[in-house]
Amino acid sequence: METEDAPLTEVGERRIEWAMRSMPVLRAIGARFADTRPLDGLKIAACLHVTAETAVLVGALKAGGAEIALAASNPLSTQNDVAAALGGYGVEVHARAGVDIETYYRHIHRALDIGPDLVLDDGCDLVNILHTERVELLDAVTGGCEETTTGVIRLRQMTAEQALRFPMVAVNDTRTKRMFDNRYGTGQSTLDGIVRATNMLLAGRTVVVAGFGFCGRGVAERARGQGARVIVTEIDPVKAVDAALQGYEVLPMADAARAGELFITVTGNRDVIRGEHLAEMRDGAVLANAGHFDVEIDVRALEGMAQEVNFGVRPYTDEYVLADGRRLLLLAEGRLVNLTAAEGHPAAVMDMSFSAHALAVAWLAEERGRLAPGVYEVPAEIDTEVARLKLEAAGIAIDELTAGQADYLRSWRAGS
Amino acid sequence: METEDAPLTEVGERRIEWAMRSMPVLRAIGARFADTRPLDGLKIAACLHVTAETAVLVGALKAGGAEIALAASNPLSTQNDVAAALGGYGVEVHARAGVDIETYYRHIHRALDIGPDLVLDDGCDLVNILHTERVELLDAVTGGCEETTTGVIRLRQMTAEQALRFPMVAVNDTRTKRMFDNRYGTGQSTLDGIVRATNMLLAGRTVVVAGFGFCGRGVAERARGQGARVIVTEIDPVKAVDAALQGYEVLPMADAARAGELFITVTGNRDVIRGEHLAEMRDGAVLANAGHFDVEIDVRALEGMAQEVNFGVRPYTDEYVLADGRRLLLLAEGRLVNLTAAEGHPAAVMDMSFSAHALAVAWLAEERGRLAPGVYEVPAEIDTEVARLKLEAAGIAIDELTAGQADYLRSWRAGS
Amino acid sequence: METEDAPLTEVGERRIEWAMRSMPVLRAIGARFADTRPLDGLKIAACLHVTAETAVLVGALKAGGAEIALAASNPLSTQNDVAAALGGYGVEVHARAGVDIETYYRHIHRALDIGPDLVLDDGCDLVNILHTERVELLDAVTGGCEETTTGVIRLRQMTAEQALRFPMVAVNDTRTKRMFDNRYGTGQSTLDGIVRATNMLLAGRTVVVAGFGFCGRGVAERARGQGARVIVTEIDPVKAVDAALQGYEVLPMADAARAGELFITVTGNRDVIRGEHLAEMRDGAVLANAGHFDVEIDVRALEGMAQEVNFGVRPYTDEYVLADGRRLLLLAEGRLVNLTAAEGHPAAVMDMSFSAHALAVAWLAEERGRLAPGVYEVPAEIDTEVARLKLEAAGIAIDELTAGQADYLRSWRAGS
Amino acid sequence: METEDAPLTEVGERRIEWAMRSMPVLRAIGARFADTRPLDGLKIAACLHVTAETAVLVGALKAGGAEIALAASNPLSTQNDVAAALGGYGVEVHARAGVDIETYYRHIHRALDIGPDLVLDDGCDLVNILHTERVELLDAVTGGCEETTTGVIRLRQMTAEQALRFPMVAVNDTRTKRMFDNRYGTGQSTLDGIVRATNMLLAGRTVVVAGFGFCGRGVAERARGQGARVIVTEIDPVKAVDAALQGYEVLPMADAARAGELFITVTGNRDVIRGEHLAEMRDGAVLANAGHFDVEIDVRALEGMAQEVNFGVRPYTDEYVLADGRRLLLLAEGRLVNLTAAEGHPAAVMDMSFSAHALAVAWLAEERGRLAPGVYEVPAEIDTEVARLKLEAAGIAIDELTAGQADYLRSWRAGS
Repeated sequence: METEDAPLTEVGERRIEWAMRSMPVLRAIGARFADTRPLDGLKIAACLHVTAETAVLVGALKAGGAEIALAASNPLSTQNDVAAALGGYGVEVHARAGVDIETYYRHIHRALDIGPDLVLDDGCDLVNILHTERVELLDAVTGGCEETTTGVIRLRQMTAEQALRFPMVAVNDTRTKRMFDNRYGTGQSTLDGIVRATNMLLAGRTVVVAGFGFCGRGVAERARGQGARVIVTEIDPVKAVDAALQGYEVLPMADAARAGELFITVTGNRDVIRGEHLAEMRDGAVLANAGHFDVEIDVRALEGMAQEVNFGVRPYTDEYVLADGRRLLLLAEGRLVNLTAAEGHPAAVMDMSFSAHALAVAWLAEERGRLAPGVYEVPAEIDTEVARLKLEAAGIAIDELTAGQADYLRSWRAGS
Repeated sequence: METEDAPLTEVGERRIEWAMRSMPVLRAIGARFADTRPLDGLKIAACLHVTAETAVLVGALKAGGAEIALAASNPLSTQNDVAAALGGYGVEVHARAGVDIETYYRHIHRALDIGPDLVLDDGCDLVNILHTERVELLDAVTGGCEETTTGVIRLRQMTAEQALRFPMVAVNDTRTKRMFDNRYGTGQSTLDGIVRATNMLLAGRTVVVAGFGFCGRGVAERARGQGARVIVTEIDPVKAVDAALQGYEVLPMADAARAGELFITVTGNRDVIRGEHLAEMRDGAVLANAGHFDVEIDVRALEGMAQEVNFGVRPYTDEYVLADGRRLLLLAEGRLVNLTAAEGHPAAVMDMSFSAHALAVAWLAEERGRLAPGVYEVPAEIDTEVARLKLEAAGIAIDELTAGQADYLRSWRAGS
Repeated sequence: METEDAPLTEVGERRIEWAMRSMPVLRAIGARFADTRPLDGLKIAACLHVTAETAVLVGALKAGGAEIALAASNPLSTQNDVAAALGGYGVEVHARAGVDIETYYRHIHRALDIGPDLVLDDGCDLVNILHTERVELLDAVTGGCEETTTGVIRLRQMTAEQALRFPMVAVNDTRTKRMFDNRYGTGQSTLDGIVRATNMLLAGRTVVVAGFGFCGRGVAERARGQGARVIVTEIDPVKAVDAALQGYEVLPMADAARAGELFITVTGNRDVIRGEHLAEMRDGAVLANAGHFDVEIDVRALEGMAQEVNFGVRPYTDEYVLADGRRLLLLAEGRLVNLTAAEGHPAAVMDMSFSAHALAVAWLAEERGRLAPGVYEVPAEIDTEVARLKLEAAGIAIDELTAGQADYLRSWRAGS
Repeated sequence: METEDAPLTEVGERRIEWAMRSMPVLRAIGARFADTRPLDGLKIAACLHVTAETAVLVGALKAGGAEIALAASNPLSTQNDVAAALGGYGVEVHARAGVDIETYYRHIHRALDIGPDLVLDDGCDLVNILHTERVELLDAVTGGCEETTTGVIRLRQMTAEQALRFPMVAVNDTRTKRMFDNRYGTGQSTLDGIVRATNMLLAGRTVVVAGFGFCGRGVAERARGQGARVIVTEIDPVKAVDAALQGYEVLPMADAARAGELFITVTGNRDVIRGEHLAEMRDGAVLANAGHFDVEIDVRALEGMAQEVNFGVRPYTDEYVLADGRRLLLLAEGRLVNLTAAEGHPAAVMDMSFSAHALAVAWLAEERGRLAPGVYEVPAEIDTEVARLKLEAAGIAIDELTAGQADYLRSWRAGS
């Protein structure tokens, strides 16, 4: 733990305790792990957003017997107080908000120094370094989990090139994660970040959402739910038709650029908003990114076009003044606006994806040595178990199949 | 074609022509088939809802060179005028609205008499009969398509029992079909059927939707979009959490039964509303089914509880008077309310699933002899092609990947 | 009663009985009237849509002691079976579906022949004739009620010109009527009529709603609730801003004409869609009117532009083929699509406005001779009473002011 | 101006400048005022939330020639930096965040010391003091404006008691204010405040909204738009029916208390959530007020029931631990959560109500001496003018009445 900020610890502890209140499922799993110790003797290197919710996950894994070294998966998202508090709990933490890119990578190396049996990643940077710069550690690694869509894309590419050396569970691809975390978590927190940064009225605003995956859908729904007129851009025809049938206007970015007042990228791809689009935008247009990496808005092009930049006209809001006087407002430097300008996903939603994460780690530990390198889905039972615990915690009862119904589903002979 | 109603033919032709206006994708595929003749010399036995939209599909397959015999997949859904018109187009049709169950099955046998190379099914009744009562025809069959969730469940069960003798494409499982047909088609047409039958105000009504699959989601969204308060029942914890996070109240049916004013079953399972639930319902409660088979509401239990039945108090609406005076209203005898009391899915939505269907048939014809028995997904390219044609027809342009973006997606080395 | 259709009577009775089920408030008021006889000895001439719901209103007034003569307020909306049934109940009915304009006006004259003490109007035609062609009856009339926005506009104009000779209660202007009937009733039934006529998919459709009054808002909400992309046109800047802040795109009709696939007029004004707009529309555009009179779409201009008209391509759907081959589809001849192609407002919503109507008639009877000519609002107590009865019928309990709260609202001295 | 914080001035200036970007209508009015000087020589005492948006209003009035003294209308809502900046602009400001109640009232007295010709109020405290403690100033006052529903209720009561001594314009009652500010402004900012305070996930949360006036409707819409399940409580049957028809569950607070997870009061009345309700709530329930005064939640009852209070478990969040261990979380001490925990209404929405405010002040100045004491509505032309300017600023064109249409609306003779 590099930060010394003693007084922070208490603030961080309070923040973690607050998150725990909204994470009853992970609490229950942590309690179970404390009994069963499924991770006894295992070392874990983790590269995750260092937030209060992550701290609860790390706590559950530690309760299960693991020794853990944690680096940040994004230079801007670290909550320093949480980092401090985690250090106090005996977790090795290498993270500080606002570090430069060299420090960022150095932190990942320090986490890897633990010599991991298992790895947890959020964007695939740690796994990448492991396969390129720390190959000496590869033999000891028996598996890992990846949290994001972006990371899973990279892992599948590594698999295709036969570069991946151990099994990775795509925590991102669980129904639990995609349906809840991506859709509801990203949806709410992205708009929360934008409103905190700008205090803009969303009602009546023309909002362009680039990308209609689970995250994009969530952002579009929440923007519409706040009264915005939402335009969607896509490259996948199926998703584009889906957006249209949900009543969104679907346009290519070249046209959307002229219509929009607020742009939110959430595609997992780079250069979604480029110079040619920036050149068409209205005075006062606001640019925000909710995709994992800060590559979706071509910030360099924006810098090149600006005559003048006024940093911090509002918190996390920089104003780029173009030659013709138009002003474009870039939020959070084009990095994840929900983690930077707000507090990331609410704990209640992280409760589900981190619970799946925790159970996936336990499953990996159990299957150790039995899985070939490659990308694995989270076993469906884990999803169901997490959802079941969630309903229980929320006090929601549901129906169960009767014997007759179960028979019916098994039979193909009954007909019209 | 058993019906002789000459004057119907013209009505049916007009209806088919109307459907064609909203089916530009299938029209384009039909035109392409007329050129390429991918089905030349093949015989197809089909068991489908005999509606105007089906007629357009059949027309496209015929244009591709197939010879076709068609039976109805539901005794109540046949549009007699369309059946008449199809006869006029040289298609062998065995279907008439309102026939009894023996005639229904006899019609399927007549369609099978063609000695099919390929089969099209909607609910798996034809495939079922083929494997149980017409096994002599099995050798000639090289594959088929199944349209519904219900049918696919039956096919997977047959595969598990090694009973299925040829490859079946689960047209139902395409993104195109599930996202659009199940969600938007079933959503709109189910409520349309209920309103036509009852003219009830949906605003402010407490609607219980049993099942939160794609169809159930569509029904719930449309009910909410009309101002109803929607309660969802489920057996799958993951779907139940999803429903809750979309703001629906989630209850077991035992509790929902007391709260609901309108019940819509759309689960694919039987006895979802049972005697124990009927016993708890309010006076005036309305019962409708949007699942494929008429088994979701236990109509026999309802009959057993009724002191008196007033058939036809409104079109497609029967009133069951219970011993204590409460009146329960059953729509469409518990059969598919959207096909019975309304006109089924709008042509625009069938355009997409039937286009996938047509392309899947062509794919099957091409792959003839190369596929083992089992359930196959529609190749993803077909989905994308259908969606692409749909956007084109709607005049919607979307973005394309730049070379740089395609590279980015392929690379796993670029990082934070 | 001019129609002789004996067998219709029973159909009509069943329809009225069905409506009564959803009209518990009006039933309760009818029962109260039967006791108190507030209309004993009074003669009422009414010009209303002759529907099942109107029959329940007429029944309540009759129970209150009134003698009633009823004419239709729209040549297309009469339900002949209901007219027949009402005749059987001893009400004088002058109405038949599809009569020509002379017969329509003759029917109003026949209703006036009763020599009314009170009048009920829906669009102001009866009051208009009374003031222009039947002035000999004016002295006896002590007041009346008007049901529509359109009618109230005409009454206010008459008042401004000092032409109105007796007090008229603007039933339309109650909160009960505007909020519920206009918004929820017109909203649902307009789209219901359009779907019955065309079976079009609303999801993804670009719908232009002309007018954003209470009715227009209702139509826009329901269209959006079905997945449509909604564009609003307005002439009032305040309503236009409201529409924009609710997330609708706001355009002048000249621009909306190019974008729309379905047009719904609901303004209360004439020539909202004119030749210049028709000239810009896409092939296949559908035109429907939900405003009271058939003047909102310039049908004559459409006829003038058409090379060919195909009547009845679907029920209530006529196709106008323009010189360049584009086809425009006019629903219900430009008349009220919800009453013509569907069944008008659901009974549950009419329950509230007709209950206010019934109580307003009783109030007028009581205030007889005390009110100067002019347009009156329904007393607020009537609104509250109707809503109270509605909640009671629905089994919904609400809070009541505590004594301390009532004091607080009365006091202006308590502060921050 | 009591605060000396020199460095604050610049922060405040930047904040005001930011607000001005979203207030094009008020900017345009300010420019017009600078030309026409409608307030030349007039002194104004204002009691308003001291925020950046208010600063823009004050700037417009100053541009019009007025001399202004400003006090805060709420002890918690003052933005100290804005207060500092306003001082720099030559406005007399008496306001500081977090002052005690004596200081709060002292500040109002200081503002009144200016000897006002006109007054601006927000909640009626200044007018109240003027009529009770500063009667010597009354003769000089020729009129004023009141911003809130709460204040207007108090003014109407004063009028009923013949206590009010000059004309007050109910700025709150404009369509512009009620439709936009109350509904969209309060809706967004209330949930924004709650999320900033708690970072809770709104999707799937059971939210109880007490009060279904314009503000309550806005809060309910935004909560639903974020995925919450919304329950409404009301005392007015008409509003309760409206809520039910919009698909909300309507319950008395006694029942809602058991079901809710988040409670938001927005009624304008006191003791809406009382001890009897607090006693029934779930562990973890969150209590927030969006009504003008901090009387809607009975905080004293809560204090009396708590065994322990943990202040600041999150920003603006205090935890009350009850005897049985349940924890209730009170936000912003029961004061306006949107102004306290967030930044109040976004500038874009204040642009409209403050523009109406500014034009109303100019109208009052013009009508000086011609209006009797009492509550006046804002002239309808002002509403229309504000909306017109708003559309212009947003680049939205709308239709205008044709001559034929204007005639049609004037005529009552044209019929069916």
